[in-house]
Amino acid sequence: MLHFDTDYMSGAHPKVMERLMETNFEQTPGYGTDQYTAKAKELILEACGAPDAKVHFLVGGTQTNSTVIDGVLARHEGVLCAESGHINVHESGAIEATGHKVLTLPSYDGKVSASDVRNFIDTFYSDETYEHMVAPGMLYISFPTEYGTVYTLKELEELSEVCRKAGIPLFIDGARLGYGLAADGGDVTLKDIARLSDVFYIGGTKVGALFGEAVVVTNKNLLNHFTPLVKQHGALLAKGRLLGVQFEALFTDGLYEQISKSCVQKAVRLKNIFLAKGYKVEVDSPTNQQFFRLPNPVVDALLKEATFEMWGPRGETESVVRFVTGWTTTDEDIDRLEEIVNA
Amino acid sequence: MLHFDTDYMSGAHPKVMERLMETNFEQTPGYGTDQYTAKAKELILEACGAPDAKVHFLVGGTQTNSTVIDGVLARHEGVLCAESGHINVHESGAIEATGHKVLTLPSYDGKVSASDVRNFIDTFYSDETYEHMVAPGMLYISFPTEYGTVYTLKELEELSEVCRKAGIPLFIDGARLGYGLAADGGDVTLKDIARLSDVFYIGGTKVGALFGEAVVVTNKNLLNHFTPLVKQHGALLAKGRLLGVQFEALFTDGLYEQISKSCVQKAVRLKNIFLAKGYKVEVDSPTNQQFFRLPNPVVDALLKEATFEMWGPRGETESVVRFVTGWTTTDEDIDRLEEIVNA
Amino acid sequence: MLHFDTDYMSGAHPKVMERLMETNFEQTPGYGTDQYTAKAKELILEACGAPDAKVHFLVGGTQTNSTVIDGVLARHEGVLCAESGHINVHESGAIEATGHKVLTLPSYDGKVSASDVRNFIDTFYSDETYEHMVAPGMLYISFPTEYGTVYTLKELEELSEVCRKAGIPLFIDGARLGYGLAADGGDVTLKDIARLSDVFYIGGTKVGALFGEAVVVTNKNLLNHFTPLVKQHGALLAKGRLLGVQFEALFTDGLYEQISKSCVQKAVRLKNIFLAKGYKVEVDSPTNQQFFRLPNPVVDALLKEATFEMWGPRGETESVVRFVTGWTTTDEDIDRLEEIVNA
Amino acid sequence: MLHFDTDYMSGAHPKVMERLMETNFEQTPGYGTDQYTAKAKELILEACGAPDAKVHFLVGGTQTNSTVIDGVLARHEGVLCAESGHINVHESGAIEATGHKVLTLPSYDGKVSASDVRNFIDTFYSDETYEHMVAPGMLYISFPTEYGTVYTLKELEELSEVCRKAGIPLFIDGARLGYGLAADGGDVTLKDIARLSDVFYIGGTKVGALFGEAVVVTNKNLLNHFTPLVKQHGALLAKGRLLGVQFEALFTDGLYEQISKSCVQKAVRLKNIFLAKGYKVEVDSPTNQQFFRLPNPVVDALLKEATFEMWGPRGETESVVRFVTGWTTTDEDIDRLEEIVNA
Repeated sequence: MLHFDTDYMSGAHPKVMERLMETNFEQTPGYGTDQYTAKAKELILEACGAPDAKVHFLVGGTQTNSTVIDGVLARHEGVLCAESGHINVHESGAIEATGHKVLTLPSYDGKVSASDVRNFIDTFYSDETYEHMVAPGMLYISFPTEYGTVYTLKELEELSEVCRKAGIPLFIDGARLGYGLAADGGDVTLKDIARLSDVFYIGGTKVGALFGEAVVVTNKNLLNHFTPLVKQHGALLAKGRLLGVQFEALFTDGLYEQISKSCVQKAVRLKNIFLAKGYKVEVDSPTNQQFFRLPNPVVDALLKEATFEMWGPRGETESVVRFVTGWTTTDEDIDRLEEIVNA
Repeated sequence: MLHFDTDYMSGAHPKVMERLMETNFEQTPGYGTDQYTAKAKELILEACGAPDAKVHFLVGGTQTNSTVIDGVLARHEGVLCAESGHINVHESGAIEATGHKVLTLPSYDGKVSASDVRNFIDTFYSDETYEHMVAPGMLYISFPTEYGTVYTLKELEELSEVCRKAGIPLFIDGARLGYGLAADGGDVTLKDIARLSDVFYIGGTKVGALFGEAVVVTNKNLLNHFTPLVKQHGALLAKGRLLGVQFEALFTDGLYEQISKSCVQKAVRLKNIFLAKGYKVEVDSPTNQQFFRLPNPVVDALLKEATFEMWGPRGETESVVRFVTGWTTTDEDIDRLEEIVNA
Repeated sequence: MLHFDTDYMSGAHPKVMERLMETNFEQTPGYGTDQYTAKAKELILEACGAPDAKVHFLVGGTQTNSTVIDGVLARHEGVLCAESGHINVHESGAIEATGHKVLTLPSYDGKVSASDVRNFIDTFYSDETYEHMVAPGMLYISFPTEYGTVYTLKELEELSEVCRKAGIPLFIDGARLGYGLAADGGDVTLKDIARLSDVFYIGGTKVGALFGEAVVVTNKNLLNHFTPLVKQHGALLAKGRLLGVQFEALFTDGLYEQISKSCVQKAVRLKNIFLAKGYKVEVDSPTNQQFFRLPNPVVDALLKEATFEMWGPRGETESVVRFVTGWTTTDEDIDRLEEIVNA
Repeated sequence: MLHFDTDYMSGAHPKVMERLMETNFEQTPGYGTDQYTAKAKELILEACGAPDAKVHFLVGGTQTNSTVIDGVLARHEGVLCAESGHINVHESGAIEATGHKVLTLPSYDGKVSASDVRNFIDTFYSDETYEHMVAPGMLYISFPTEYGTVYTLKELEELSEVCRKAGIPLFIDGARLGYGLAADGGDVTLKDIARLSDVFYIGGTKVGALFGEAVVVTNKNLLNHFTPLVKQHGALLAKGRLLGVQFEALFTDGLYEQISKSCVQKAVRLKNIFLAKGYKVEVDSPTNQQFFRLPNPVVDALLKEATFEMWGPRGETESVVRFVTGWTTTDEDIDRLEEIVNA
């Protein structure tokens, strides 16, 4: 069987595993106070072009989102987010569990628009009863989005500007950041992300690590007591160096970038196979997640040899499906998929 | 340098790493729905003699404590705990962050007494204003405790009986459970733990795994919607099979027990070295954590060749120190320590 | 000036004040353990036809909503609610502050439909990833709604049936319950409310009291430890008898009903004045809140002699306004308004 | 029967009720935006000698404590408090429900010592693992305390200095503030309270009002978005002017002071009656709460003609009781009590 369900179906990239094996017997202090973690932070800050920023390693995406948002917002504030945003849909209420409302904005294939953000804020403060409503205290976006789409540099700059004018931090969920930066036709760099946001994270779980998310705080006024909050959220790994070792590997010799690019290239090949056959994309994604609207017989034929996600309920004649490439996806996998599609 | 700081200074036991390497390229569904996780659950339930119990895997101890306690307590309830309990001292307020008070009981070298629990409950309900106070909704104990001590079977049975009579669940924090079961002179088995508690966990992080805690819910009325709560707490690992693979390894051919016993044996040797020299234990622990009250010159001499924790502030003439053995501690380490102590 | 801003602009109905004055010097125990509170509970249960239900008195609507919802929901659950619902819009995130998501349903002039509720629940559980989403744990509706509209008896019965089949409690926010029961053309009685919901409240603040909401819990499985939760939410009034005295007055000789009917009659007169003049209602409300879409010159003329709320931002040529009658509104006020409108 | 149970057994002082009656039919905007509230704030700030401070009116003490503390603390912080403090004992976990730990200090007849506060903070930050513990983020004291005792001006100045040096706000629970300021032999003024604390409140419920607490925020950096937080906590009264009217009455012609002094004088008379008879005070209180250790036969004799609280469980031969005077306590009540005691 071919597997295109998601990008977290395997373990870690061999180079990451190799380093975990090599360091396995070493004894280092816990909770991220070791030298591997220090080195990984250094490499990440260099890659971000943000020498004064701070890096914290957490284990997974949901916990990272809820810990960051809990730390940024004041008690009376909520977080702006696309209706389709992960924190609004697929985190079992983790944000609300910390006491904060998710304030939804229209989703354009997963993205929010700067004008919607501005309007929300303007409308909010023009309402005389605004103190009876939840104040927008930050903006959450994902890059790439839950639909695989990415913001252009211009769009990101506009969002950043709106947020800075309004005095609310911009937080970028980068669970799949590598794929966003490697997006086909994309023009956003890691340095742009660091420059335009106030806090963001570099996802490891879905880009070659066993697990791990590297939070980068570029805004000096934010999250100055983040470690106790990470601990309080149960997100401080005892053997913290496991995160350091993995991110050191990912940020050595461009491994993170290389994994991301390779996955995106395979995803683009995969997309072209379906397009060539005349099938339609449901969302036009330039990253490693691809969404197609396929006739049900095609879906059924594919299901015999491949696993992938049904995106929403099966339709009467056609259904939406999601194909995802990961670091274990090979060119041979794509070749074989091509044969099936063209059979 | 010799390292006796703690039991989470290295990676995972070689057999655990071996299995992670062997399975690294396999592709399995996420969030613990894979066959390794299923197999690990089966092995654990067998070891517990509790075929009808449920097992959930989480990543770390603090998150396990806060997720379980949050799931068990009603909104108006708090959790009974020794003053010295981990949840009361060293979790950055994780329990309170979920909205619940930690109700403290006297600590006897880390343990609580059944009579104190009973008295607390009786006194509480005999107070006319009890509805203005936080109701005791469950009992938390650690096995072994934060001081390395263990309950006897009789003590556990008494605690269990008090809880069942009062209708409050007994939760056992087993972050170091293996060492407690292997305690020198101990008489408690894993099956006893399962039989006498309502929910407990088997710590992996400190007993040979990279990370991971296996929560076993034996009381059928508890935690019936635990998975969404685990997700909400940011504790649901995407690559969930990593937990399954590790616990399968630990519960195959008695590895978990073997690691635990070996560590405890080395700790007992270590204790005897200090005792033979006439030094005093601060707490008489039968497990892998050992606490000594040493003259400061001895402490200083040791610090030149070994790392270990100062337990509280340095005293004027003597100080309390903690030595911990882990799966990487060798007999040669203990030999060398003996030489230093006797030098 | 005439005042039609809202129904909480004055103190309490004279009969309520009279009783507060008469009992002012009496000394009774606190926190609602007095005989006035007991008597008021008895009168309310009789009026509800629910002798076995339980009554609790709280001070205001927002605190009642958040305390009840916090007490009903499990940690992983959220509350279903019309998008326009008070808890979703105008309570500063009070529900989220207790850790729960508000799950929104389409609003039809403030109401939700039974089929939308059913569809939400069905769709939710048919999603394979439902454990990663917030489970619908109860349904919140307001009666009358924020737009003054009311459910018919048939609609309420359908909602109740959907909820009972799904096993989720139905909670009715009755901050203005009296006006809903007195609705022009309405067919729902207090006994229906008690019979069809699991918990609801009878609003005092907006219907003749200084303050106070009477929560009636008809479902025996719910809120069995409500008093400590009320205290925890800061909603347990020290001089609890003030609530008892007021509700005793309101439920003696049909005062609550009489106030409600009188206000609704005046509101209907008021509506007819605007309709007769050819103006349009924005929402067709049968209760004491009336919404009109008026030409801006009419709005401006009215503003010279009356206060009322602009409902949303002023439009270019016409605007939506809200007129509310309260227990202090007199027939002379309506006469005078008629003169102004017809001037 | 004579009643000495507590100071919230009656309604409001006649002058307060008079003003509520006089203004009852007036129509004013809601939520404290009326002119009575504005006037009351002005009078309070004048009395505090703090023209730039801000005043907010809430309904009750527990909700005031939890709203203020929730607004002041960062997520990783807890509140320092005497073990006997109201927030630690008698608020059903209201502070923990907002996510914060109550960090307890020794109680000396209800008071904390500046040196204990300093030591706590110093010890905390000298611990290498302090990020795994709950940081002290503010100090809560009550004035008078739960035992009726008061801080001297010197003690308050020391506490204030310790807090300011440590950079943590000092919050004074003044549920019975009037009685503390009127303490027999006390040397603290309202202006001292305002000058030495960062936020405090002036209790109305127990000092002549039906209900109501006036929060005064003197530290400009604190609680700048307090109104939405008050709403979120369900503590924003719809008919907010009821609080304004009452506090205006209490702060007109020194009524608040006069009620307080009168109650304290009666309490001192009451104390002297018991002392003259040779009975012992359990706590030497200079305010309106008095604690005696009485032989059980005396207790029983008193119970035939008076109500008061047993303070803790009945002892074998003697018991501790609490007598409280309130604005309804008359000189005749004290005369009669004297007769009973001396009978």
